[in-house]
Amino acid sequence: MDIHLHPSERVDDLITNQRKIIQSHEVFSFSMDAVLLGHFASLPIQKGRIMDLCTGNGVIPLLLSTRSKAVIDALEIQERLYDMAVRNVKLNHLQEQIHIHLGDLKEAPKQFGHGAYDVVTCNPPYMLPQTGEVNQNEHFAIARHEIYCTLEDVIRVSAYLTKSGGKVAMVHRPSRFVDLIDLMRKHRIEPKRIRFVHSKAGAEANMVLIEGIRDGKPDVKLLPPLIVYDEKGSYTPELLKIYFGTEERV
Amino acid sequence: MDIHLHPSERVDDLITNQRKIIQSHEVFSFSMDAVLLGHFASLPIQKGRIMDLCTGNGVIPLLLSTRSKAVIDALEIQERLYDMAVRNVKLNHLQEQIHIHLGDLKEAPKQFGHGAYDVVTCNPPYMLPQTGEVNQNEHFAIARHEIYCTLEDVIRVSAYLTKSGGKVAMVHRPSRFVDLIDLMRKHRIEPKRIRFVHSKAGAEANMVLIEGIRDGKPDVKLLPPLIVYDEKGSYTPELLKIYFGTEERV
Repeated sequence: MDIHLHPSERVDDLITNQRKIIQSHEVFSFSMDAVLLGHFASLPIQKGRIMDLCTGNGVIPLLLSTRSKAVIDALEIQERLYDMAVRNVKLNHLQEQIHIHLGDLKEAPKQFGHGAYDVVTCNPPYMLPQTGEVNQNEHFAIARHEIYCTLEDVIRVSAYLTKSGGKVAMVHRPSRFVDLIDLMRKHRIEPKRIRFVHSKAGAEANMVLIEGIRDGKPDVKLLPPLIVYDEKGSYTPELLKIYFGTEERV
Repeated sequence: MDIHLHPSERVDDLITNQRKIIQSHEVFSFSMDAVLLGHFASLPIQKGRIMDLCTGNGVIPLLLSTRSKAVIDALEIQERLYDMAVRNVKLNHLQEQIHIHLGDLKEAPKQFGHGAYDVVTCNPPYMLPQTGEVNQNEHFAIARHEIYCTLEDVIRVSAYLTKSGGKVAMVHRPSRFVDLIDLMRKHRIEPKRIRFVHSKAGAEANMVLIEGIRDGKPDVKLLPPLIVYDEKGSYTPELLKIYFGTEERV
């Protein structure tokens, strides 16, 4: 294998379907959010086009490629992460299916065209620029804070890229949930499936998965809550199944 | 006791705090929705003013009066239900705290004034006029379908009646959840606490409880899911506690 690794990088198992992934504690490591979004999004199975915005090291395209034969484009603004994503695609021999692009998502409509995609996914920066402690490491800061793009940019661009009747799937923090709903409707993505993630059954939600349909009719399903840990602090069977494809820990 | 009962009516226990309630299978019986909203809404404890819109037989004011000493106004458009609510207040000797009014909520701002309430509650008709089978019984039809008022009427009037910083709490079906959020924001009630109710842990939500603050700042909490039945089909401890004030069935 001729994939170069930078000093801070390591190759991890992505678990599902033997995918491998290059990560770096200095730059970007994928989180549970990405795994849950990769599992949650409704996908075309045999053909079609998918776009993943804010792709980071390409974790979501790698996960989606285990569930769909659609062509997957993915866009990342940070050159170092773009480069990692390109190597991740090669490492998994997925160059024919996954195409990583370097660029600003605000320019994506010009570059990729209107209504070109069946599905757009995005695990965007969660935090408003002025909130929380902005990470001193600029790579993390850009991935976590709305520095290069706002939530409205992400949703406007997602709507632009998605064909009428196509789907937009995102993961976000519940505190921004009302904004998310508001902005999706404003940009004609009607929320249709919502799932809240709770670390324990009795805890507030700490993540929300949401999927909307471009030009869809109002009517939303609130899916069963996804609980991460049982009362003993072990992963719940459903979470093990999402991570490992089986309810037994491997 | 000199409370007159119509032939179809019966007196039931409202369980919590020994309240009694007149119901009628011909006209209106309270549901779990009312009990959960009566428990969910944040209330001033010692004083203040509460308004319950679409009060039906007055079940929500009766429940709220077990948690708060605030003056409670309640509005109902159907004369037969209004009359039942008035008798329910008398039956429980709550005439000093609860005042039932007959009228159309769309006229309420004129009648009750702008920003006069600390809290407005409402268990509104759930169904759009053109959807589902409209009940042949007009009492049920008016209580269930948006015949005399739309969801937007309810929210606009709630916003009008509530003081800045006051709270609006409602229960509704998840399918209208996105409309609910949208309309609350439009009328300057910022959603702040949301709780989904699932009949079982693995089922889609079938009810949503939502509370917003008039002129509040964006930032919403998604509370732990409320599960009604456990895997054996018995009420969960939390539900028993809401209904009976104890986790043991009485």
